[in-house]
Amino acid sequence: MKVINKIEKAIAEGRCFWSFEYFPPKTETGITNLYDRMERMYGLGPEFIDVTWNAGGSSSDVTMQICQTAQSVYGLETCMHLTCTNMPREKIDKALAECKAYGIQNILALRGDPPRGQEQWTKVETGFSYAADLVRYIREQYGDYFCIGVAAYPEGHTENPSRDEDLQHLKAKIDAGADYIVTQLFYDVGLYLNWLKEIEEFGIHVPVLPGIMPIQSYGGFKRMTTLGKTFVPQHILDALEPIKDDDKAVKEFGIKLAIEMCNRMKDAGVRGFHFYTMNLERATRLILEGLNFVAPMELVKPLPWNPSLAKNREKENVRPIFWRNRTRSYILRTEGWDDFPNGRWGDSRSPAYGDLDGYGISLKHSKQECLDMWDHPTAPEDIYQLFVKYCRDEVNALPWSDAPLSGESEVIRNHLAEVNASGFLTINSQPAVDGVPSSHPVLGWGPRNGFVYQKAYLEFFVSPAALDALIAKINKKDFITYYAVNKQGDLKTNTQGDSPNAVTWGVFPGQEIVQPTIVEAQSFMAWKDEAFELWNKWADLYENSSASAKLIREISDTWFLMNVVDNNFKEEHAIFEILKDVQPATNGYAAKANGRNGIPGAALH
Amino acid sequence: MKVINKIEKAIAEGRCFWSFEYFPPKTETGITNLYDRMERMYGLGPEFIDVTWNAGGSSSDVTMQICQTAQSVYGLETCMHLTCTNMPREKIDKALAECKAYGIQNILALRGDPPRGQEQWTKVETGFSYAADLVRYIREQYGDYFCIGVAAYPEGHTENPSRDEDLQHLKAKIDAGADYIVTQLFYDVGLYLNWLKEIEEFGIHVPVLPGIMPIQSYGGFKRMTTLGKTFVPQHILDALEPIKDDDKAVKEFGIKLAIEMCNRMKDAGVRGFHFYTMNLERATRLILEGLNFVAPMELVKPLPWNPSLAKNREKENVRPIFWRNRTRSYILRTEGWDDFPNGRWGDSRSPAYGDLDGYGISLKHSKQECLDMWDHPTAPEDIYQLFVKYCRDEVNALPWSDAPLSGESEVIRNHLAEVNASGFLTINSQPAVDGVPSSHPVLGWGPRNGFVYQKAYLEFFVSPAALDALIAKINKKDFITYYAVNKQGDLKTNTQGDSPNAVTWGVFPGQEIVQPTIVEAQSFMAWKDEAFELWNKWADLYENSSASAKLIREISDTWFLMNVVDNNFKEEHAIFEILKDVQPATNGYAAKANGRNGIPGAALH
Repeated sequence: MKVINKIEKAIAEGRCFWSFEYFPPKTETGITNLYDRMERMYGLGPEFIDVTWNAGGSSSDVTMQICQTAQSVYGLETCMHLTCTNMPREKIDKALAECKAYGIQNILALRGDPPRGQEQWTKVETGFSYAADLVRYIREQYGDYFCIGVAAYPEGHTENPSRDEDLQHLKAKIDAGADYIVTQLFYDVGLYLNWLKEIEEFGIHVPVLPGIMPIQSYGGFKRMTTLGKTFVPQHILDALEPIKDDDKAVKEFGIKLAIEMCNRMKDAGVRGFHFYTMNLERATRLILEGLNFVAPMELVKPLPWNPSLAKNREKENVRPIFWRNRTRSYILRTEGWDDFPNGRWGDSRSPAYGDLDGYGISLKHSKQECLDMWDHPTAPEDIYQLFVKYCRDEVNALPWSDAPLSGESEVIRNHLAEVNASGFLTINSQPAVDGVPSSHPVLGWGPRNGFVYQKAYLEFFVSPAALDALIAKINKKDFITYYAVNKQGDLKTNTQGDSPNAVTWGVFPGQEIVQPTIVEAQSFMAWKDEAFELWNKWADLYENSSASAKLIREISDTWFLMNVVDNNFKEEHAIFEILKDVQPATNGYAAKANGRNGIPGAALH
Repeated sequence: MKVINKIEKAIAEGRCFWSFEYFPPKTETGITNLYDRMERMYGLGPEFIDVTWNAGGSSSDVTMQICQTAQSVYGLETCMHLTCTNMPREKIDKALAECKAYGIQNILALRGDPPRGQEQWTKVETGFSYAADLVRYIREQYGDYFCIGVAAYPEGHTENPSRDEDLQHLKAKIDAGADYIVTQLFYDVGLYLNWLKEIEEFGIHVPVLPGIMPIQSYGGFKRMTTLGKTFVPQHILDALEPIKDDDKAVKEFGIKLAIEMCNRMKDAGVRGFHFYTMNLERATRLILEGLNFVAPMELVKPLPWNPSLAKNREKENVRPIFWRNRTRSYILRTEGWDDFPNGRWGDSRSPAYGDLDGYGISLKHSKQECLDMWDHPTAPEDIYQLFVKYCRDEVNALPWSDAPLSGESEVIRNHLAEVNASGFLTINSQPAVDGVPSSHPVLGWGPRNGFVYQKAYLEFFVSPAALDALIAKINKKDFITYYAVNKQGDLKTNTQGDSPNAVTWGVFPGQEIVQPTIVEAQSFMAWKDEAFELWNKWADLYENSSASAKLIREISDTWFLMNVVDNNFKEEHAIFEILKDVQPATNGYAAKANGRNGIPGAALH
């Protein structure tokens, strides 16, 4: 979708909106962390995000990769920066063609800084000298396909001391076909508001987003401002002086200042704000909170998961529940599909999931971080307790979950801790929901005036003995369906036929029922490879002959991955009753070894 | 589906089951009435139905037509009789080919009676002499495609005095490939049970359904039994003698007797019963009730409407709500579709409905019956009151509804009467349902352990003035969506986009959400042609220049057909609040003419 359409819609609705700018990190870990951050910051409701372009250097490929991932995996409407620096025509052509292929419809067209080590900006052969030329070229080549943004310098461009020339340059970019303007950072709001009037009088009428750069550190701020690009009002300098050595105080001041600036602009009628996040989350979040900016409901959660904005996935609205904590893997393993489920998963779908090898399975945290969190388990109970701690928020991640338990799990947190303590090692779950309003702050999603539902879902690893006892218990129940599979692929289920089970759905005015999450056998089989492989990644943290590695590998080799759905979504906690007091057929010495009866993991010993 | 599979499933489940036999009526009205009856008797849960074959005469085309309609419109698993009488090979080939084309998979293969006016049965050239030959031929030509039933005569065939020869004939039919046996009628249960043992000993092991013919009249019974075909135990003759002139008493006795016979067979292990209905409903229904036979839930109502069993429609599970009382018309107007909606109606569907002309619109009742019911309205209020009477069950039909209000409307009966009294002439409606068990006797449908839902729906004719007032009121509501259209096709709606609105859905264990009924603009436009045309059919009952004809045509020419959905299905009766106290902008003299204020039909005057 075009950013300009979103901007115009927000303006028409009279509401404030905001966008976030990121830059491509230099390391793989940096990129992974940025993805986590982007995913979390989706919840802050940016109308779109920007990713900067590194002057034709190697990181321009990274820019492209981040844009594609943001658009297709995280469902963030993405605008890619594109500069003239070191960009011959064929590189520009390639970048634009790739954007179009990925469904990215937004370009911020810039001239760009001189390449590193060069003082003066020089044009490359077959390249462009001015952003306006780039804008014109994009319009010539792609017509209306792209929304094009351009930059502006409310305080004057460093290379253009003439104020009037600045305005003419800006006007030239608009006349060449640019749709909106994002400004350089500034700290003098009065100056900005004056400039707004100025360009208006100069005949520039497209939307303008002020660039907000919260002060994050005194050093960085000084470097930036002493380059002479930015005028800093004296009161800011005065306020910073006494706290300049206190990083925390500087950060807090930066947030307070940004809030004040935005509020002043808001009072003057400004609606859109562009945040230079510096790839950081906290400041932007606190500023938005301080401004009482709340993302419009439909922007934050059109579905319980973030819909992809990749071109070929635009109608996709059903996914298996299994990859909930590994969205990127799901997107990658399904990117070869010709079409994506829309409305329903469908009986006839025969999903061919891509191999694990294609992208690799890895733990998101460093080895040391993992060891700090997970220690050196030597008995099954150590592992049970680790899972219990995760449920109690005392451990931040597990191999299957990079982030703490999500908001909706709050209501089942204690239940989860309990079942984990008895050896059902949960890696995914959702509580039953019986028709809460779609505006519900935690459980809601989708358009207004709807109602959303969930069937209670639990997915866990379970020892073979406990599995048998559990299945015997489930067989007496009407409402429970399950699938269980071990690493070797032996599948047990009480379902008939291949039909998918919708476990999340919503009822909205004037629509068919939306059923975005399903449980289904073939997808589960594809998922289990990943789920079991993550045990191995965990084991790899330890010496191969260590007790921890052996324990973890033995669990991985012998236990089952099981998912259980309570189809009676009107019974809130019945699913946990099923897992209580399961008495596995232990093989005699198990109970002794554990010193307790009825431990599902007992068969391991 | 094959009848034999259904029989074997019922036997495996240890439950009783039953089937109904019909014969082709001689008149068009008779056929229409039979359809109504078949549709109603669907609710009695027959495992399948039979339609008899009239010896190659003209009514064999009628047999075919009834079979096709039963299968595709009413969703009754149908078995077609096929006889050897007057049937040269090419006629047999044609009949079988047509069956296959219509998705009918069941044939009852008979030799048949001699043609009318002939004493002795004679073979036609290229035809067959024995049912066994016909069975063999069907198997040769179609392999396993058809399930084949054959007849048997527990009391001996009239033309075969030798008991042993009878058994050999029957055995020959089974050996030729028949799947099951239906017997001739009998009244001596002991004799039947003995015969069952006899055929078992003779090596015949296929399922046998006893043919039950409830005594409907003394005359008919005597005619049938004095042909010497049927042995009647003395106690039956004794019981009939004193009541033979009392038709009602004979009928009651016939029902009682059939119940006794079936119970005795049931005690002896018989599970399946084949009823010779003589195209009548009451006796069969009372017998089933007397036996406490309740159709298995999934048999009676897999969906809120009867799924078609036509081959090309086998996956169809979504329909617009509009044709609820005119299923046959819907089936006919959509029979040219290449595929049918499954799972969801879908955004992209562009339904091309067949013309009305293709099958004609008609009133189901005779002119006199209609006039008796609807009298001669001369003022709008007369029509309002007629609709009110229909809601109160004081009138049995309206042009738009051949049958009285259905069971689920019971809860909104009074509300409906009230809105009709104020000039919103309702022709379709459903109450809001907020998740009742799928086993609910009135509102339930679909598999066990599910929950079903409905959005409140009302469809009515409304005067232009009342429409404007109503729309003004609806515009202030969050949850109401509507479409309104006049005969000329001017459409008004508050919906955005073309998306269909699911108004009935169900949530079941291990399945995606089932959403069998929708409201959608294009379908509504196709439906309105029928809805308005029915006014004309009503007007046609009267002299063209009569006040009644003029009144009806004026309503048809100026009023709107409107449908309203309350998307908040948790509010049971809110939809009726909307229609209360609607104050149309009358054009001055309207209120006077009516002597009342605020009558929506006022603008008519």
